[in-house]
Amino acid sequence: MSGREFFDVVTVSEALAGFRPSRRTEIESVPLEEALGRVVASDVLATDALPGFPRATVDGFAVRAADTYGASEGLPTYFTLAGAVRMGTAPTAAVEPGTCVAIPTGAVIPDGADAVVMVEHTAQPMHGTIEVTRPVAPGAGLVRADEDVRPGAVLIRAGRPLRAAELGLLAAAGVTTIDVHARPKVAIISTGDEVVPPSTQKLAAGQVRDATASALAGLTRDAGGDPVIEGIVADDRDALEVALRQALEHADLVVISAGSSVGARDETAGAVAALGTIWCHGLAIKPGKPTLLAECSGVPVLGLPGNPLSALVVFRTIGTPLVWRLAGCESPPPEPNIRARLTRDVPSAAGRLDIIQVEVGDGLAEPLFGPSALLSVLTRADGYIVVPEPATGLDGGTEVEVVLYR
Amino acid sequence: MSGREFFDVVTVSEALAGFRPSRRTEIESVPLEEALGRVVASDVLATDALPGFPRATVDGFAVRAADTYGASEGLPTYFTLAGAVRMGTAPTAAVEPGTCVAIPTGAVIPDGADAVVMVEHTAQPMHGTIEVTRPVAPGAGLVRADEDVRPGAVLIRAGRPLRAAELGLLAAAGVTTIDVHARPKVAIISTGDEVVPPSTQKLAAGQVRDATASALAGLTRDAGGDPVIEGIVADDRDALEVALRQALEHADLVVISAGSSVGARDETAGAVAALGTIWCHGLAIKPGKPTLLAECSGVPVLGLPGNPLSALVVFRTIGTPLVWRLAGCESPPPEPNIRARLTRDVPSAAGRLDIIQVEVGDGLAEPLFGPSALLSVLTRADGYIVVPEPATGLDGGTEVEVVLYR
Repeated sequence: MSGREFFDVVTVSEALAGFRPSRRTEIESVPLEEALGRVVASDVLATDALPGFPRATVDGFAVRAADTYGASEGLPTYFTLAGAVRMGTAPTAAVEPGTCVAIPTGAVIPDGADAVVMVEHTAQPMHGTIEVTRPVAPGAGLVRADEDVRPGAVLIRAGRPLRAAELGLLAAAGVTTIDVHARPKVAIISTGDEVVPPSTQKLAAGQVRDATASALAGLTRDAGGDPVIEGIVADDRDALEVALRQALEHADLVVISAGSSVGARDETAGAVAALGTIWCHGLAIKPGKPTLLAECSGVPVLGLPGNPLSALVVFRTIGTPLVWRLAGCESPPPEPNIRARLTRDVPSAAGRLDIIQVEVGDGLAEPLFGPSALLSVLTRADGYIVVPEPATGLDGGTEVEVVLYR
Repeated sequence: MSGREFFDVVTVSEALAGFRPSRRTEIESVPLEEALGRVVASDVLATDALPGFPRATVDGFAVRAADTYGASEGLPTYFTLAGAVRMGTAPTAAVEPGTCVAIPTGAVIPDGADAVVMVEHTAQPMHGTIEVTRPVAPGAGLVRADEDVRPGAVLIRAGRPLRAAELGLLAAAGVTTIDVHARPKVAIISTGDEVVPPSTQKLAAGQVRDATASALAGLTRDAGGDPVIEGIVADDRDALEVALRQALEHADLVVISAGSSVGARDETAGAVAALGTIWCHGLAIKPGKPTLLAECSGVPVLGLPGNPLSALVVFRTIGTPLVWRLAGCESPPPEPNIRARLTRDVPSAAGRLDIIQVEVGDGLAEPLFGPSALLSVLTRADGYIVVPEPATGLDGGTEVEVVLYR
């Protein structure tokens, strides 16, 4: 507490645009069933066409479309039934002028046919004869052999996190192992002379259990990373330097939840500066101003404010996109959000991003104020709103976008 | 293909409200670090207050607020500095009238003090004397011992999936293992004489690889479930019945991606009916009409349409909330969504829920039409829009809510 704080403050947009360490995690091969949410390391190309054969999309009769022209309810066209295609096998009969072949959805279009008449638009007046009551255009009721995917087409672009649908497409294309970026290892160092492990049953006077590390581990997993809780280090520059040096050996990102006092923050900055380059010390965000961004031996280091709420706000804002980028994904999956009307005025200062926790119900967003030291504010919150840097506050009644916590 | 289809069709809202199997998964105890996304089985109560002691929320000086009344820049009030509180320890000095104690953010408020003056509103004109230039109200600069959590308060309600913030609160309260519902086991049976495993390198004529099972496994994981891919069964009632009976022994939910032809669907319905009760056969949704909902031996069974896109649409609509409910969660976490303007008209039929895949960019939602047999439609899509049951379509230019895929 020897003096005032000094921050080399940057805005959140400046930090997101400017602090972009080049580190990326290694590439590993995983089976399809473990690939959900993983980031594809290089474009995946189709070797063959999909579906690979012309395929019926309706139950009905394969025909030459030209043979159906003029057909109507009043004046049906009659076809000779030349056979039936069985699912999963090659057709045994071809379609000749004036003939048709029965076909179920998903089966191979027989040679000679260029359309399928839906069963609903046919009747079978006698054995071996089909009447068609509606004309079809060429291509109706079927997909071409390469309509879903052409050979050589990009199935999935590098940098995309795999969703359920992509797993389906890869399975269809016979891709059962896939090269993805390793999950970024995020080392979480807690500091603070007052901080003790969550397993501590009886607290001594002034002690608090480490809430931030567990919460940051959760946010790390949400971002596709692999958290490593490094434990609690005293507010001492040497101890911090030792812990940081160890973490840098195995981590892709080091996060330090700094002690909450000015003195403790100075120790953190000192330890980080000894091992690398500080990019900024101070972020124009509330809560979260005492944030530090640095790079040590090519590993990004994120120094977070001491209290849990501020630490989580900053990690979501800066840490989450960083974890995705370390895994090769420049456009992280979207956060859930909804629109709601503010129940009351929210003050803010221009030039600063304000993150306001809110409860949401009936289309209304109720700001949760109160000391940022309170964890219960975070667990009560359904999400948060952002008051952008140029704004000086939002009026009650304004429609805002609420980013929802999952 | 012997006849027309008959559906005992219900609307999606009727299905969501009416098909509510009572089954819930068992309760298991997991360590905090594995609890993210898990559903809490019973209310978790706080044993002690949090933070547990009156705590400074700013760096400054603990005082009796009354002593600061009248203080101003022009006429500061002077205090005798009686000591300093160290982080994580009990204060050694108390605050008497006219005295103050230096205190860092997060430390214990000493006896006698009821407020903390921020260091920014003080000066130290000489050793042992602090001048205060602004009055503070009682309670300023601190949180009470039980301000975050009162003893006995509910930390987390039963039925809530645990987010990162809740992990933090539980850690702070010393809760390091937690009772949660087991992940619902979702057995995925694929059917279809044309369907072969994704690992099949060379396809024979008419064969397709099983895309649906892998995609459904992904959606199951997204919903907090544990997928069990049961493999591919021929379109044969006896074979299906054997597979279904086996799955029912270990699954909390059985999903059958039915063969795509009418005949194959009949076989599925027959096998399900032999082992339980069909609740509906037909859902007023497009795509996805040939959906079957049933309960066999207390286990919900979901029969999905044959093509992957329809199967995924129905699983998201009906299966996802079902998986969450099996784990004891009645209000699943929200899906990400954004608002966008439709680029063109979307037709629909009244009384039916239409799910339209869309690409999103620049605030516009571009509907992706085309045969629902195409997987590439799903992987191109950023999300979907819902045309509600009463609507007969949406005009181009309408602002719609797009549910985004993660």
